[in-house]
Amino acid sequence: MPTTRLPSAGFSITIRVSVTADASAIGRLTTCVGEAGAVVTALDVVDSDHLRVTVDITCDTADSSHADQVVKALEVLPGVEVHKVSDRTFLLHLGGKIEVNSKVALRNRDELSRAYTPGVARVCLAIAENPDDARRLTIKRNTVAVVTDGSAVLGLGNIGPAASLPVMEGKAALFKRFGGVDAWPVVLDTQDTEEIVRIVRAIAPAYGGINLEDIAAPRCFEIEERLRQELDIPVFHDDQHGTAICVLAALTNALRVVGKDLADVRVVVSGAGAAGTAIMKLLLRQGVGDVIAYDRKGALHRGMTDLSPAWQWLAEHTNTTGYSGDLPGALRGADVFIGVSAPNLLTADDIATMAPNSIVFALANPDPEVDPREARKHAAVVATGRSDQPNQINNVLAFPGVFRGMLDAHAEAFTDEMALAAARAIADVVGEEKINPSVIVPSVFDPRVSPAVAAAVRDAARPAIT
Amino acid sequence: MPTTRLPSAGFSITIRVSVTADASAIGRLTTCVGEAGAVVTALDVVDSDHLRVTVDITCDTADSSHADQVVKALEVLPGVEVHKVSDRTFLLHLGGKIEVNSKVALRNRDELSRAYTPGVARVCLAIAENPDDARRLTIKRNTVAVVTDGSAVLGLGNIGPAASLPVMEGKAALFKRFGGVDAWPVVLDTQDTEEIVRIVRAIAPAYGGINLEDIAAPRCFEIEERLRQELDIPVFHDDQHGTAICVLAALTNALRVVGKDLADVRVVVSGAGAAGTAIMKLLLRQGVGDVIAYDRKGALHRGMTDLSPAWQWLAEHTNTTGYSGDLPGALRGADVFIGVSAPNLLTADDIATMAPNSIVFALANPDPEVDPREARKHAAVVATGRSDQPNQINNVLAFPGVFRGMLDAHAEAFTDEMALAAARAIADVVGEEKINPSVIVPSVFDPRVSPAVAAAVRDAARPAIT
Repeated sequence: MPTTRLPSAGFSITIRVSVTADASAIGRLTTCVGEAGAVVTALDVVDSDHLRVTVDITCDTADSSHADQVVKALEVLPGVEVHKVSDRTFLLHLGGKIEVNSKVALRNRDELSRAYTPGVARVCLAIAENPDDARRLTIKRNTVAVVTDGSAVLGLGNIGPAASLPVMEGKAALFKRFGGVDAWPVVLDTQDTEEIVRIVRAIAPAYGGINLEDIAAPRCFEIEERLRQELDIPVFHDDQHGTAICVLAALTNALRVVGKDLADVRVVVSGAGAAGTAIMKLLLRQGVGDVIAYDRKGALHRGMTDLSPAWQWLAEHTNTTGYSGDLPGALRGADVFIGVSAPNLLTADDIATMAPNSIVFALANPDPEVDPREARKHAAVVATGRSDQPNQINNVLAFPGVFRGMLDAHAEAFTDEMALAAARAIADVVGEEKINPSVIVPSVFDPRVSPAVAAAVRDAARPAIT
Repeated sequence: MPTTRLPSAGFSITIRVSVTADASAIGRLTTCVGEAGAVVTALDVVDSDHLRVTVDITCDTADSSHADQVVKALEVLPGVEVHKVSDRTFLLHLGGKIEVNSKVALRNRDELSRAYTPGVARVCLAIAENPDDARRLTIKRNTVAVVTDGSAVLGLGNIGPAASLPVMEGKAALFKRFGGVDAWPVVLDTQDTEEIVRIVRAIAPAYGGINLEDIAAPRCFEIEERLRQELDIPVFHDDQHGTAICVLAALTNALRVVGKDLADVRVVVSGAGAAGTAIMKLLLRQGVGDVIAYDRKGALHRGMTDLSPAWQWLAEHTNTTGYSGDLPGALRGADVFIGVSAPNLLTADDIATMAPNSIVFALANPDPEVDPREARKHAAVVATGRSDQPNQINNVLAFPGVFRGMLDAHAEAFTDEMALAAARAIADVVGEEKINPSVIVPSVFDPRVSPAVAAAVRDAARPAIT
């Protein structure tokens, strides 16, 4: 294997090749591709005559440089000519991934008169008189803004609004696919907190909810907090709350597997950014035994000074023993490790020092804090963010159902109660009898997940009157 | 008729009524509805037994109070019981009129890996390296923002962002239906010029064009001007430029009907707001003989003081004779009247004082500056904004094709050349041999219009290299 990453569909290419037509010609091509470390997923004959045959070889590669190596390996084969290489991921993105469609027919004058002038004027006046009617008579009923400033996109960092658009479009596609929610990308050419707050407040009338996405910490905390105070629609930061819900769901089932109670466990969280902070707050809310937050300043504890407000809060509410040593030291005797930080911080030896029946969630993407194969030598349950490992913790489990439920309930805010209810719903979809160390979360394609989450959130939004 | 307006589909209601079952029962119902001035468009039997029959009567009414009168007229008929009244326009608006759909399938892990993580990261990086790729690989390729502050919505005035949403959704539906353009409503909860400019600038990365809509004058002029300077995508204010294009197209054919040249005619424009100003600028650009702008301060002329910058410009560039009298006086001997102002300003007698073969465009909605039936007694060609009169001047003729053309050409600005080309294309769709006093513009449903406008705008955007 020329690279350490595995071939995946995200790096699938199609290579058009012509080759001298003999009995073993095509076999030589696929062998060559396989020996170069790629996985052939399709082979289509495009053209042929008595002398030559032209085929499209589609294969998964590990990354762009690996794809180049595969093509080069074919080019040096005798009698082979490479015509063109198409990247299936780029082909899929041509023209964007989402579109706006009319739900009403506009075939004739009568239909035009109802959907637009003059009929529409009455609907406008009804909303002007009773603003709540916007939730009934407009897209606000079912529409969420996916807002980013492009400052912390995937693992790519601060790539700006235009380059973040493919992610936000993908998010919108997932919202529709898994939650039936209409989501629209709002990519902002500003990274000023005040400006972002003002803009989101100004565009809010068209939306039933705001999903903040890929905004760098600590700015994301203030933006979210300010918007929560100022808007009468739910504000949800997926990197925080979506991740926290999924981690709590996975931890709930992992603790069932090892037979421990949340109230008795000690958790070490590596990475006190957006995700880590939200995870710890939700664990504290749910009554975790103790948490130690570890970031580039070390283990956050009460003796530290000059902390940001977010870290100050964590220092005051976590780490009851005042631990101030290094990450491997914190891990010694801990029950749970949750990594939302950086690749390859820990070794199998570090995991070996944890308490018996330990749980390891190494969620840094694409390369986890510890190799999951190594971690499994000592931990009882291991989860990652990767789709090629068991127990993938993926936010798609949470956000579509959470917003489906909030929109259906006409919720005015996202609450801790909704987060806890959503986490419980995700955990319960697996079912007590199916839980095992390799199955602590449902598949993202499990059709029961989103409706279960939506129902739990709706119930949490409309508490029974007692 | 209890009202002066005619029944229309925009005020269509469905009345569920049960009535004693005798041979003439249903006939009595429809007669009653007809005598109340409504037009029955459908009659559906819902239920019946030996004694009674329940029917849904669908009928066009003139407005909401007329609809109430129709229902009351039925209620007092002997043996008749009205069960419920549904308003078809409101039913159509439930849940909003547009939706966001995914263009990519997300059926399995491979598809997810290409449309979202990890595959999407490569597309993001490609755009980060080459920002122009956003026009190829994202929704920017085909997407327009429909931006309003809700300050001048239809004829309803300053109803605010939420109440304007049904209009903007309708506009988005028209963009798709007639131009294949993805358009998204951006309704802003601010009416501050600086703030609107900042917001539109910040959200611009996702869009290939900006369509300003229903923003009050004179604020709309400054917003448009500032955005044109600051953005590298076209900015188009439909109330200005869309209207101006359609008026120029209609006037081109009206002048063909009466055999006059634009360079020789004197035009009086009532209403120097967004639409009127843009119309006059385009007429001047095209070489009109003379124009007089009439608004609430009277005829704009060089001797006036304390004018807004927009009116100052008009005072300096129109009204070559310095006319300063009233509107009927301005009309005397004029060749063309264009009203974009208020209802019932003129009578048939005023029109009679115009030059022979006069042209009257009375575009105030829903009630024109002069009753078109009265105007036709003296004018050679009469047009309105109404769909129930010949020669409807409707912006749907222009904006879908204009944006289709600008997006296809990757245009960075909307230009006068595009406006002139679009007007010519609309006028030419009618065809010399089909023009007559009742047919100076094509139908909004004529499928040739949008492609012709788009082609003309594309050509204007990419001038041949000489």
